[in-house]
Amino acid sequence: MLTLYYAPGTCALASHLALEYAGAPYDTVRLDFKQQQQRSPEYLRVNPKGRVPALVTDRGAVTENPAILLYIAQTFPAAKLAPLDDPFALAKMNEFNSYMASTVHVNHAHKGRGYRWVDAQDSVALEAMKKKVPQTMAESFTLIEEQMFKGPWVLGERFSTSDLYLYTISRWLEGDGVDVKRFPKVAEHMARLDAQPQVRKVVAAHSA
Amino acid sequence: MLTLYYAPGTCALASHLALEYAGAPYDTVRLDFKQQQQRSPEYLRVNPKGRVPALVTDRGAVTENPAILLYIAQTFPAAKLAPLDDPFALAKMNEFNSYMASTVHVNHAHKGRGYRWVDAQDSVALEAMKKKVPQTMAESFTLIEEQMFKGPWVLGERFSTSDLYLYTISRWLEGDGVDVKRFPKVAEHMARLDAQPQVRKVVAAHSA
Repeated sequence: MLTLYYAPGTCALASHLALEYAGAPYDTVRLDFKQQQQRSPEYLRVNPKGRVPALVTDRGAVTENPAILLYIAQTFPAAKLAPLDDPFALAKMNEFNSYMASTVHVNHAHKGRGYRWVDAQDSVALEAMKKKVPQTMAESFTLIEEQMFKGPWVLGERFSTSDLYLYTISRWLEGDGVDVKRFPKVAEHMARLDAQPQVRKVVAAHSA
Repeated sequence: MLTLYYAPGTCALASHLALEYAGAPYDTVRLDFKQQQQRSPEYLRVNPKGRVPALVTDRGAVTENPAILLYIAQTFPAAKLAPLDDPFALAKMNEFNSYMASTVHVNHAHKGRGYRWVDAQDSVALEAMKKKVPQTMAESFTLIEEQMFKGPWVLGERFSTSDLYLYTISRWLEGDGVDVKRFPKVAEHMARLDAQPQVRKVVAAHSA
């Protein structure tokens, strides 16, 4: 059995969606970030980084969305969530997922988690970071819209974990002060996923 | 033929080392960041993100270290740079590589590339970011030393791309104001890799 640790509103949605699309048997444990449950001794034994997602397997925990997404795709191959038969196509999936994790998510984090990189009391620096988020997110989504997104899915004809990751981060745009309509392909992709039953089910659980 | 675009002193060293350890036939193109060659129209056609590394293959370019490292491991399996036969072990490699890319590299980037996240003229905010780098790098390496590093290699008995990525980022500690000797396992790992002929060859090329 797999157990996913997540918190609502976080990037853990991507891994949660992948479990659902995989048809995997899984449980979830919801953490309340407002109560700092990700810093509890119990959770730090699951993931010493104190972040989500963490996917606990029979052999231990896997963290970091790009790693979890490929793991789910490999262990539930019938769901065809990754081009496992083609190392170049798989590299393009991992490239996209890595860009989400190390650039786009990091841009977004400068809005609410700037204390990671400056003194938590330095309100001037925190505000300076927050101010640039609409610009950095718009720049990243311009690249996605114009260069990376092949259509109809992120990688082209084949649906993959990258679609679930893009969807997860696209949902942050409005709160980051960026109108998704500036990016017609991304907006249409987001609306298409919004309508899928797996997405509706998992998003409803996060919103409950 | 593979062509790696890199710049000295950057994280592209990890991918460069992987090509060398793989015994891959490859060329390199060195970019001069001081001359902003990563922003030239020619290079932006290779990698619209204007970053390194980029590995150009017969089917197009792959970017982002975690994606390139797995791609090299998959296309040169005899070099045994990844536990390709074990999805869980592979997930742990990808987890480590993703942590390097999205947390540790990002910590480091707040020293010299803070303008990514605040106005480039805001010298006060840039200084505030720079100031915290020794702390964030030390915190990440404490986690690596105490929790992630299995020994004798990152993943345990099997050498992998994670060793090359850890080595690459360990080299930044001194410049980031952190004494690697605070982390005995990481320091010994770094010294062991320093002595390997593949590392000596590639590091010499970057230093030339």
